[in-house]
Amino acid sequence: MNTSYNRIAGTGLERLAALSDGLFAIAMTLIVLEIRVPAREAVATEKALGVALIGLLPRIVTYLLSFLTLGIFWVGQQTQLNHFSRADRHLSWLHLAFLAGVATMPFSTGLLAEFTTFRTALLVYWANVLLSGVVLYLGWLYAERAGLVKESTPPDVGRTIKRRIVVAQTLYAIGAALCVVDTYWSIGFIVLVQLNYAIAPRIPGLSRLTT
Amino acid sequence: MNTSYNRIAGTGLERLAALSDGLFAIAMTLIVLEIRVPAREAVATEKALGVALIGLLPRIVTYLLSFLTLGIFWVGQQTQLNHFSRADRHLSWLHLAFLAGVATMPFSTGLLAEFTTFRTALLVYWANVLLSGVVLYLGWLYAERAGLVKESTPPDVGRTIKRRIVVAQTLYAIGAALCVVDTYWSIGFIVLVQLNYAIAPRIPGLSRLTT
Amino acid sequence: MNTSYNRIAGTGLERLAALSDGLFAIAMTLIVLEIRVPAREAVATEKALGVALIGLLPRIVTYLLSFLTLGIFWVGQQTQLNHFSRADRHLSWLHLAFLAGVATMPFSTGLLAEFTTFRTALLVYWANVLLSGVVLYLGWLYAERAGLVKESTPPDVGRTIKRRIVVAQTLYAIGAALCVVDTYWSIGFIVLVQLNYAIAPRIPGLSRLTT
Amino acid sequence: MNTSYNRIAGTGLERLAALSDGLFAIAMTLIVLEIRVPAREAVATEKALGVALIGLLPRIVTYLLSFLTLGIFWVGQQTQLNHFSRADRHLSWLHLAFLAGVATMPFSTGLLAEFTTFRTALLVYWANVLLSGVVLYLGWLYAERAGLVKESTPPDVGRTIKRRIVVAQTLYAIGAALCVVDTYWSIGFIVLVQLNYAIAPRIPGLSRLTT
Repeated sequence: MNTSYNRIAGTGLERLAALSDGLFAIAMTLIVLEIRVPAREAVATEKALGVALIGLLPRIVTYLLSFLTLGIFWVGQQTQLNHFSRADRHLSWLHLAFLAGVATMPFSTGLLAEFTTFRTALLVYWANVLLSGVVLYLGWLYAERAGLVKESTPPDVGRTIKRRIVVAQTLYAIGAALCVVDTYWSIGFIVLVQLNYAIAPRIPGLSRLTT
Repeated sequence: MNTSYNRIAGTGLERLAALSDGLFAIAMTLIVLEIRVPAREAVATEKALGVALIGLLPRIVTYLLSFLTLGIFWVGQQTQLNHFSRADRHLSWLHLAFLAGVATMPFSTGLLAEFTTFRTALLVYWANVLLSGVVLYLGWLYAERAGLVKESTPPDVGRTIKRRIVVAQTLYAIGAALCVVDTYWSIGFIVLVQLNYAIAPRIPGLSRLTT
Repeated sequence: MNTSYNRIAGTGLERLAALSDGLFAIAMTLIVLEIRVPAREAVATEKALGVALIGLLPRIVTYLLSFLTLGIFWVGQQTQLNHFSRADRHLSWLHLAFLAGVATMPFSTGLLAEFTTFRTALLVYWANVLLSGVVLYLGWLYAERAGLVKESTPPDVGRTIKRRIVVAQTLYAIGAALCVVDTYWSIGFIVLVQLNYAIAPRIPGLSRLTT
Repeated sequence: MNTSYNRIAGTGLERLAALSDGLFAIAMTLIVLEIRVPAREAVATEKALGVALIGLLPRIVTYLLSFLTLGIFWVGQQTQLNHFSRADRHLSWLHLAFLAGVATMPFSTGLLAEFTTFRTALLVYWANVLLSGVVLYLGWLYAERAGLVKESTPPDVGRTIKRRIVVAQTLYAIGAALCVVDTYWSIGFIVLVQLNYAIAPRIPGLSRLTT
């Protein structure tokens, strides 16, 4: 019977991963729909089309920003799931809460794209990133206490995962605080932090955090 | 040949799970689209944006309600699939009927969000939850009779799964009946029941139903 | 190296199944979006809401029709994939062509829902079902000739799969031809054929075709 | 611990494949939404419906073009993933960048459908195909250098994969250059190249490139 229960839990992890992959894939595709094809009637010449496409640049930047955010969370969640031996219903619900946060990222990014110079929009965006990160952190904490982490996982993996979330969220919070100066400073800072996580350049100090 | 057929059925279960995960992921993401970014033209100041965001609160509550409903059904279906040794075409169609019910949840919740004080909307929402639960119950009943449940599954698992659906649906029905007083009573009661299933607090009596 | 190639092909089948499950899940969810929540402004009383919901009935029937069609094709494709030992690029492209047909089903059904009494709409719907069925048939034929069918699959499985598609498509063609009388006769006949495939009642003669 | 890390990386490949399948499935279904059902009010007779449907032909061609493009990239990425023994974070991010390119294909194709005679639209479409191809090429290059390719993969597989991307992209570039004459020449040439990759006819010389 013990074996049977482990089998069940294993399948549970797979389905959690499958649900997450589906949800991330949809969120990543839906944000592209915000880059709208210019209306045919409003564009008569090649030059006018070029101008219309340049006018789409902010939405393209928004798309890339959202894509980076979603990619970072996808990699982060995957790293955690890889170290779990099984799931239980509490872990499932913590990750469902995380997915609820992920699913609202397109809304927050859309809000930021539409109200780029508004501090309120920037703080909503930041709150969304913060909440998703906090829930992901709690998910790992719970897994450690409930004995869901694989026995083969060395203890420093847990420390790395937790420190990484704390460092990233601290950097995001600094970025959000920069809106006291200007929202563009915040956005620029957050994009740089995200690119650092995505590209992981071998800058001493930085690279340690993103390994 | 017998081995070959078992293999086929096993793959069938996996694809049923994959189809379900995809469908749940899409439903969970589509309901977020109902939280719309305020129109740029209508909002001139930080204060106006704050007011517009507060106006989105009912839609955010609706989103969380839908997400809880979908999460509960996802966990419930997963629990059943974990205990099946294989699928056959009748089981597949029962779960397809369940998915047809799940896919209409965004509609029912959207209806309830738009017509919160209307008993008709509340009863449509309840009928959707009821029908999905009934089909899920029939799915388990059929699997037991057709010998699709794993031999390693102890008999009390079946009793727990069936009792849980009956208890949950009874609570939902009580919630729906409360609309004789007021639809807000119904909604509040159903949300509390759902949170209980999601968070599963260790309240004696309650926790037994949600294990 | 031989083992390595089999492994590759196996993964290919899995990814074909995953792509199909995702595409079917999205198509099944998108068709629900056609059932629109009535506009709040147009509905003032409980009675008016009831009337508005009854007005949605044709769209609900359309939704169920599409769901049945998609479910039948999903089960049919799954049955084939279960009997393949591996995929190659031709098989992949035949199934991609099948998926292209499946993805247009919401369009055809939407067309039929909007133009229920038009023979043109009915024939477009039928052409879509016919083409998808023909490509699925060709997929099996190709797999047999290219030696992609599992050795453990008894020869009568191939005969059953091919006969089933021919019988179903003949019944659909008869349904389409009934539009000479009236499109409602066609729709009614096709729905009955589909329900027969979904529910598979034990009517002698009929049940043989749907096993 | 070594075994454990391989296991982690293996799961990573599976999740990368699952995310990709989901994203491709959504992109393939979303492009169908561009084929819109004619408005009921504008169509009174069977003849008028026939005319309206013929008017949809360009959008149907666009749909098929997009579907071919997505199918070719899906098969191409799958071929690469099949030859990886494991993934690391750089490979994940290279494939996430590839997926970001894939997700924008519906936009580029929609742009081309709306502005068929505009060179700007054609060049945007081509740039999208080019960038996606380049990132996919870099993905393979990185995997080779980072030792992520399976040991059982013979060295000529890598050569074939790289040559295939270079040849295809050269043909696409020739197609794009043909817009000096006329955009229709470009589109026709690109469609023919794509059909060649999809159908893979046994024309000597051509077939070698598409194996």
